[in-house]
Amino acid sequence: MKYDYEIAVIGAGAAGYAAAIYAGRSGASVVVFDKGMGGGLTMEAPKVENYPGFKSIGGVELMEKMKEHAMEYAEMKFGEEVKELKLLNGGVEVITSRQKYVVGAAILCTGSEHRKLNVKGEKEFAGRGVSYCATCDGFFFKGKKVAVVGGGNSAVIEAIYLRQIGCDVFVIHRRDELRAEKALEEEAKEKGVKFIWNSVVEEIFGKEMVEGIKIRDVKSDKEKILEVSGVFISIGEEPQNGLAKQLGLKLDENGYIIVDEMGRTNVERIFAAGDVTDGVRQIITACAGGAKAALAAMKAIGKRSPF
Amino acid sequence: MKYDYEIAVIGAGAAGYAAAIYAGRSGASVVVFDKGMGGGLTMEAPKVENYPGFKSIGGVELMEKMKEHAMEYAEMKFGEEVKELKLLNGGVEVITSRQKYVVGAAILCTGSEHRKLNVKGEKEFAGRGVSYCATCDGFFFKGKKVAVVGGGNSAVIEAIYLRQIGCDVFVIHRRDELRAEKALEEEAKEKGVKFIWNSVVEEIFGKEMVEGIKIRDVKSDKEKILEVSGVFISIGEEPQNGLAKQLGLKLDENGYIIVDEMGRTNVERIFAAGDVTDGVRQIITACAGGAKAALAAMKAIGKRSPF
Repeated sequence: MKYDYEIAVIGAGAAGYAAAIYAGRSGASVVVFDKGMGGGLTMEAPKVENYPGFKSIGGVELMEKMKEHAMEYAEMKFGEEVKELKLLNGGVEVITSRQKYVVGAAILCTGSEHRKLNVKGEKEFAGRGVSYCATCDGFFFKGKKVAVVGGGNSAVIEAIYLRQIGCDVFVIHRRDELRAEKALEEEAKEKGVKFIWNSVVEEIFGKEMVEGIKIRDVKSDKEKILEVSGVFISIGEEPQNGLAKQLGLKLDENGYIIVDEMGRTNVERIFAAGDVTDGVRQIITACAGGAKAALAAMKAIGKRSPF
Repeated sequence: MKYDYEIAVIGAGAAGYAAAIYAGRSGASVVVFDKGMGGGLTMEAPKVENYPGFKSIGGVELMEKMKEHAMEYAEMKFGEEVKELKLLNGGVEVITSRQKYVVGAAILCTGSEHRKLNVKGEKEFAGRGVSYCATCDGFFFKGKKVAVVGGGNSAVIEAIYLRQIGCDVFVIHRRDELRAEKALEEEAKEKGVKFIWNSVVEEIFGKEMVEGIKIRDVKSDKEKILEVSGVFISIGEEPQNGLAKQLGLKLDENGYIIVDEMGRTNVERIFAAGDVTDGVRQIITACAGGAKAALAAMKAIGKRSPF
C-alpha cells in the first residue's frame, strides 16, 4: 500500500511533538495534524517549572520550542482537524476537514480537557490563579490561601497535596457530604484542610491575579467572599476520545484510551499517548508516552525500532 | 519515625533529577546521592537532539541544566556512594560511603552501563563515533557508513534501524552465525545490511572522529580495515542493580528492576526509575519514570500525591 505519510500524529501537544520527533528520527515520514495552532493544554500554563531542564519557562514558550523541534522531523498541518480514521487493509485512512490521506499508522495524542465550572472569572483568570492541576501548579501557591472546588477523591487528594506543599486550603463542595472516601476526608481534616459545605462558586474575581471567590450557600442562599490566591477546579477531566470511540478502542471507566507500556492500543496500527491515555497529566510523562508510541509504531509500517 | 530526609534518590542521572524535582515540588524533603558528579550516561553524549524542547544540546550541558533545576528542590550529595539500603520498620536506612541516614522512601535511579568491547580507541572515541544506542545517536549518521558490533536480536534490530535511517550498515560478528532470530537476519539482509562473519574488532581509529575499524578474521587471522564513521557496540547492557539485589527486588531476566507503571517495586518504600528499570534507554522516558516514582513515593512517607 502506498502511503502519503508513514505515520500520522493526531494532536500537536507535548505527546504529539515528542512522537513526531521520535518517529522522524527513526526514519519514518511523519505528518502531525492539529485542529488548532498546536501546543495542547500546556499553552494555558503561564509558568512551567517541572519539565526537567527548564527551571522556569512559559507554557507557550516551551511549546514553541517543541514545535520547532518537531518541525525538523515532521510536516505540520495546523488548523486541519481529523474527522475520522478508517482502518484499511494494510493502512489507515485519515479524513480531515480538508482532504483524505493514507498512512501506515496513527498515533492519537488528542489530549483531554478540564471540566469547567462555567462561572464568571474562570476563563479570564485561567493560569492567573485558576488551575485545573495541583501537581502542575500547586508549588506556585506555597504558603498561600487556596480553594479547591469539588467533592470527589481527586478533589480531596489535591486538597491534601496542596496542604502538604504549605497552602492554606479550603474545599468548596455543593453538597453536605463528599463523594470522596471517608478515610480521605478524615485525613484531610486531620491535616488542616477546611471544608465549606453546601456551597457553590458564583464568581472568581481579582485584578491581575485571582484575589478571591464569591460563594453562595445553596441552603440559606447567602453569599460570601473568600479571599484566596488560587482556585483549583477539580470536577473532572474529559479525555478527547471521539476518534478513539469511532475506532472501537478500549477505554477505561473514565474514558481514557487503554494502552500498554509502549502506547499500543487494542487495534493494530493505532497507538496513543499523552493525556488521552491516562491521568498523570504531566508534560514530561506525555512526551515519554509519545516517544514510546512512535518507536512502537515503526513496526506497523514494516520498519524497526530497537524497542 | 524521624527521617533525616523524607525521600532519598540514589543516582543523579535524568531519572534521579526528575524524581528530585517532583518529590520536592510535592512537599517532601529530598536528598540525592551520586557516587560521582552526577549526570549519568547522558554525560557521554556530545549531542542530544531527541529531548523535546532542545533541538540540539550537549549532553553535559543538558545534565547541568537538570542538576541546577533539581537543586531548587533537593539537597545534592555528590561523591557519596550508597553502599547499602536497610529496611526499617517505618523507614529505610541509607548507608553511604560517609555516613548513615534514615529516610522514608528510596528511589533507585542507578542506571545501567554499556558492556564494553575493551579495544583500543573505544574509550577515546566514545561520543565521537562510538555509540551504544542506535535510537539515541543513529540519526547523526544518516547517509554514512557504520558498523554494528554484536550478534543478538538487539544488534540486528539496531542494524535494521540504522539502515532505515539511511546508513550503510555492516554487522561485525565473531561467529559464523547469529544468536538473533533467523527472521531478523533475513529481514536485515533483505534491507541491505551487510554481514562480516567470524570477525572481531581489534581497534577503532580516527583523528577527531572515528574514521574506521581494524577487524581480524578469527579463522584466517587476517586483518583488514573497514572505513566507517560510526561504530555501534551492541553487546549488552549492565543494569546497576547491586542495591536492588541486596534488597531482594524482583528483577527481569536481563537484570532490570521490575516496576509497575508508577515505579513501584515489589518492596514497600522502594521505588525505581530510569535505565535500571527498562531498556528504552531514553532521557525523556527516564525523566518520566523519575517523576512518576516520586509521585508514588509520597504515599510511603504518609503524604499524598494526586497519582
